[in-house]
Parts: sequence; structure tokens; C-alpha cells
Amino acid sequence: MKTESMITGPTLFIDEEKCRNNISKMAEKASRLNLQFRPHFKTHQSLGVGRWFKDEGVSKITVSSVKMAAYFSKEWKDITIAFPINWFEIDTINRLASDIHLTLLLESIETADFLEKNLTNQVDIYVKINVGNDRTGLPPDSTDIIEQLLGKVSKSDKLVLRGFLGHAGQTYHCRGHDAIVREHEKARAIMSSLKSYFASYFPDLMISLGDTPSCSVAGNYEELDEIRPGNFVFYDLMQHQIGANQISQIAVAVACPIVSVHPERSEVVVYGGAVHLSKDRIVDKEGIIFGRLAEKKEKAWGDIIPDSFVTRLSQEHGIISVPSGDIHRYKPGDYVMVLPVHSCLTADVLPYYMTFDGTIINKLNR
Amino acid sequence: MKTESMITGPTLFIDEEKCRNNISKMAEKASRLNLQFRPHFKTHQSLGVGRWFKDEGVSKITVSSVKMAAYFSKEWKDITIAFPINWFEIDTINRLASDIHLTLLLESIETADFLEKNLTNQVDIYVKINVGNDRTGLPPDSTDIIEQLLGKVSKSDKLVLRGFLGHAGQTYHCRGHDAIVREHEKARAIMSSLKSYFASYFPDLMISLGDTPSCSVAGNYEELDEIRPGNFVFYDLMQHQIGANQISQIAVAVACPIVSVHPERSEVVVYGGAVHLSKDRIVDKEGIIFGRLAEKKEKAWGDIIPDSFVTRLSQEHGIISVPSGDIHRYKPGDYVMVLPVHSCLTADVLPYYMTFDGTIINKLNR
Repeated sequence: MKTESMITGPTLFIDEEKCRNNISKMAEKASRLNLQFRPHFKTHQSLGVGRWFKDEGVSKITVSSVKMAAYFSKEWKDITIAFPINWFEIDTINRLASDIHLTLLLESIETADFLEKNLTNQVDIYVKINVGNDRTGLPPDSTDIIEQLLGKVSKSDKLVLRGFLGHAGQTYHCRGHDAIVREHEKARAIMSSLKSYFASYFPDLMISLGDTPSCSVAGNYEELDEIRPGNFVFYDLMQHQIGANQISQIAVAVACPIVSVHPERSEVVVYGGAVHLSKDRIVDKEGIIFGRLAEKKEKAWGDIIPDSFVTRLSQEHGIISVPSGDIHRYKPGDYVMVLPVHSCLTADVLPYYMTFDGTIINKLNR
Repeated sequence: MKTESMITGPTLFIDEEKCRNNISKMAEKASRLNLQFRPHFKTHQSLGVGRWFKDEGVSKITVSSVKMAAYFSKEWKDITIAFPINWFEIDTINRLASDIHLTLLLESIETADFLEKNLTNQVDIYVKINVGNDRTGLPPDSTDIIEQLLGKVSKSDKLVLRGFLGHAGQTYHCRGHDAIVREHEKARAIMSSLKSYFASYFPDLMISLGDTPSCSVAGNYEELDEIRPGNFVFYDLMQHQIGANQISQIAVAVACPIVSVHPERSEVVVYGGAVHLSKDRIVDKEGIIFGRLAEKKEKAWGDIIPDSFVTRLSQEHGIISVPSGDIHRYKPGDYVMVLPVHSCLTADVLPYYMTFDGTIINKLNR
């Protein structure tokens, strides 16, 4: 089946082989290091892609919203919602907790009290620790409040204390292997000393960490019990810039119809804008970039086409800068393949995945 | 009905009164200046909101995709697709052209030939001119190719030549009334001299312009026949920064549940991330901003809360910086109202509008 015949507008293609390789590589690493592998499904948000994880023996997953947990609960019975508890969703949380093994994150006394009062079924609890990302989680030096929380949870009939969970999202600011490993080691050290600090009262605390950059390149997981990377399933240009993946590992690309060609400024206009690619950006040697072109192939895509990148986005338009010597290669009625800057957001806005044999793989949509 | 009882996650509220005021103000201006008002519906993408335009006598609209045209064709019978023709959608274009009065934009000989060969019904044509935005459109000094295109269209049985269409999107880089008017005047001058240039052969060419900043503040529309603003229906922080609207005219806001409060860094974490607000940004005195908090009111929202803004976004999390003296006002289980940076993109990602009496207004979704 020709790619041309499978598209009418911006279409999210998935390379099943690359994707399965990314999954099996991470699953093998977790297994080798004796870590529980609880991949984050916020990136693909698809029961279909999820089945490729089952083929690697995965049975426990992470999601970032109650809605995603409800969607995946059709096929997955052990889910961690790695997002602070949203009180407005207690009814769905209760329904889920009656159906599956549900794990929630806690970082405040108020929310612990709210759960104690409103939960109708038992859930597992991780206390969320800020390991340097400054997004959510208790500061690791706030041992008083951490102790209070641990005490409250351990005394509750509804809450089962599991351990400490963190997300070293600061690795997204790293460039290269050594910088990532440094941040990973800091996060590991924080968790490890917290575990020691509370070891006499709570000897069985588990530690869960696991952003994609750290899980892709770091080698030392001593004292850790679980990893939860998500983006690695597809990778993208941002992760490549950080140093987490090769371009050849990126497993999704957006086919965008060419609608206008401007030789006078060496730019190609495609149907593929902010509402398809997302406005996430990287700053690279060429300036701000919203995507890069990859060579088209019969049943896949190939290398990056040098100096050919999405330079501006409006709602539905993508403006692609190409070398002036290449502009004659582009014409209306044809299409380009765009590698995304941030695959999580691109996958979120597009309605489904298309494989190169023309199969549609559905996903959660708003 | 209390706002609290209408939300479980990030919810896009619409203030019907503000929205209707924005619509009637622009409709009156067009009428006063004897301009055809063909509002762009890409911002709201909703048949329900569209009916408020009908109440102001609007019968012709603009959209930015074939998909939107198909959606609105249920209730609107005169639609301009202000986006270069996507060859992959010719079947839907043909279906639409058999059902409604359809206007398309043309900017290349190849696409003119494609239409001539593949159209099954007559459509109206505007030649798209680049009036300074450098996104799409023929350069105004490329009179040879413009003449070729005009000739081709005027000789065709399937294409009905209407005139020149431009979008002065460069006004988005303006700050303040005078700068906007300067860009508007440049665009008007370009169109006006093109019209004169071709007047002897094509005496009836119409001119269509109309970005939201120009249409909101400029007063001189001599030689113009049609305006097509879109964003003004809601406005937003970006348009406010440009100088197109007052904060009190912004007609949509996102209610976001508070899920975590961090007094140690004076930040509030909400359920409302990049997939709800979009990653569009403005740079203001505080740095990069993805939204600002507005005061909550019983059936609306009020003024901006000073120095309280969305400073970072991840997929589902919004991180809001607030003054340290205000942090005690925020608690898990409550919510905040966020004014969007770019209402077109925020409206695009959220699934519906909610009014303060609890009515859901549906919209087009992917």
C-alpha cells in the first residue's frame, strides 16, 4: 500500500519495528538490573501499542491522568497514576480502585485526609519526592512532613504504603551522557538517603524513579526498585538533543501534505500546524525548530534530510525551511515526513497511529 | 449551578456575554464600513458558537481546513477555505462544492491545473497574496505569475475569479495601536496597488484582508471589500499584548483543579498542562508565560490576579507562580481560572465549551 493512498491530512505514522525494538531494549535492561519495569503509557496512550509491551512480559503500567487509567483499565489491572490526586475525580478513582490494583501518589496531609474520608476501596500509596525537577513532590529535606505522611498512611486501612516515587525531569535540560548520569546519580542519592533515614521504622520502602533520559543511558540502579520511563517508546528530536537516543530509534513521524512551495524564500508550506505537531520546540544550531524532515521510504522513513526543518507553525500551517538547492524536489500534491520535537505532545493531538501496511491503531482521545 | 460541580478536569469555560459582545462589535464595525464580514471560524470551531454570529446577521464564513468546512457545511452554505488547496482532499472538496457555495485560495499554476482537471463543480477563487506575513501567497511583485493565474482562472469554466486575498499576520509581532495600523496600511497599499495594476483587464476584483489585530484597531478600509478576523471572538493574552483587546474582553478561560501547593517555592500545581492549554507562549515582563490567573466569580471570572501566571507546562501539569503572600489562598480540592495565551490553540485541544449555567457547547474534534 502506497503511503500516498493512506493520507488526506497530517497523519501520524508508526514504525512498528523501531517501536518494538525500543520496548524490548528497555524491558531487557530492567530485567538485567532486576528492576520492576512499569512503563509510562502517557506517551502512546494506546491499547494497541500497549499490547506490544505485553509481548515483552510487561503487566504493570504508569499513566498521568485518571482518564488514562480508566481507558487502560480495560486491559491492564495494575496501574500507577503518576500525578497528584485530583479531588474532583474521586468517583472515578473509587470505581477504578474497586476494579484494578491502583497506586496513587501522595504529597500532602490534606489530600491524605481527603482520601481517608472519601476512598471506598484500598489503594497503594507512594509518597512523591521532589528529586530536583521542582514540579511536584515534597522537598527531600522536609523529613518532618514526610514522616507525618508515612505515619498517616501506615496507620490507614485504606492506604497501603509502598515507598517513595520521584521523577528526575531535570535531565531534560541535560546535553549528553555524562550530564544525564550526574542528574540521575543525584536523584538516586536523594532517594537512597531518604530510604536509609526511615529504614528503622519503615524497612520495606520501595523506590521508584525513571525518566527517559536516565533510563536510556544510566547504568547504576543500586537501591532502586522500579523504573517508569515513557517517551522511550517513540523517542523524538528533543530526546536526541538531550542524548537519550539515535535519530534511527525515533518510531513516529507525521506525514504532512505539501500545499505550497516558495522558491523565493526556499520554504515549503505543509498542512501540519500547531494543532498537529504541537508548539513544543527545541533550539538547535539553526534556531527554533518544531520538527525535521526525514527521507521518505516505501514502508518507513530514513535519515534526516540535512538543513530541512519546521521553522514556524501557525494553527494549520507548517513552514519548512529547505536548502535552496533542494526546493525543486518539493511540489504541491506530494507530502513530507516530519520527525516530531516532542512525540508525547504530537501523539496526544493526533487521533490515531497508521502503520505502513495501512492499519489504524486507535488511542485515547479527548 | 456552582462551578465546582461542573468540573472534574481542565474545563474550557465560555462567557457568552463577552463573546456575543465581541461578535456584535466586529459585525457593527464591518457594517459601518460597508465591508463584507466573513468571520474566521477556526478559533471556536463550534456550530453552537456559530449561531451567535447568525444572530448578528452573519451568513458567510471562513475556515482553515477542508475538515472544518465539512463540519460547518451542516449549517453554513457559503464558506471560504483560507488555506492552500490540499490535493489529497479533492474528493471532499468536490462533495462540498456540490452542496455549498465554496471559495478556495490559489497561489500556483500547478494547483490551478490540478483543479481544472479534478474539480467536478464550480468554485470561487481568490488568488492568495503575501502581504508581508511570509507564510503563504504570491509575492505582490510577481505580477507575471499573478497575471498568468488570473488569466487561467478567468478562462476556466470551473473556477470563478473573485479577487485577491491576504492575511497580514505580521501584526502579531506588533505592540500597540500605531504599529498595528502601520502594518495594516502596508497590507492595504499592497492590495490596492495590485488591484489598480490589473484593473483594466479585471475591473471587478474584490479584496479580502483581515487579521484580528488590524480589524480590532484600524479605521481605514478604503479599497477593501471583505474582512475575515477570527480570534476576536474570544481574544486572549497574546492579542492583549499586541494591543488588540482589553483583558475584560477575553471570553474563554480554563478552570484547572489545584492538585498540589508548594509554599517553599510559592508555586501551585494544577491539572492543566500542555495538552490542555497548548504550549504557545508570550514573553512578558515576568519572562515566558503560558497563561494568567483570573479572579473567580460566581458565574464568570474577573480581573487578572497580579503576578500569578503559568510559568511551566508539562504534558498534564501546569505550574503556577503566585506571590508568596497569596500562597495560602490555594489548596488541593479547589480550582483556578486560567486565561489562555492563545485561545485558538487552547480551544482546539479542549473537547467542548461549558457555560456558567452548565450547558455544554459542542465543537469539532479530531
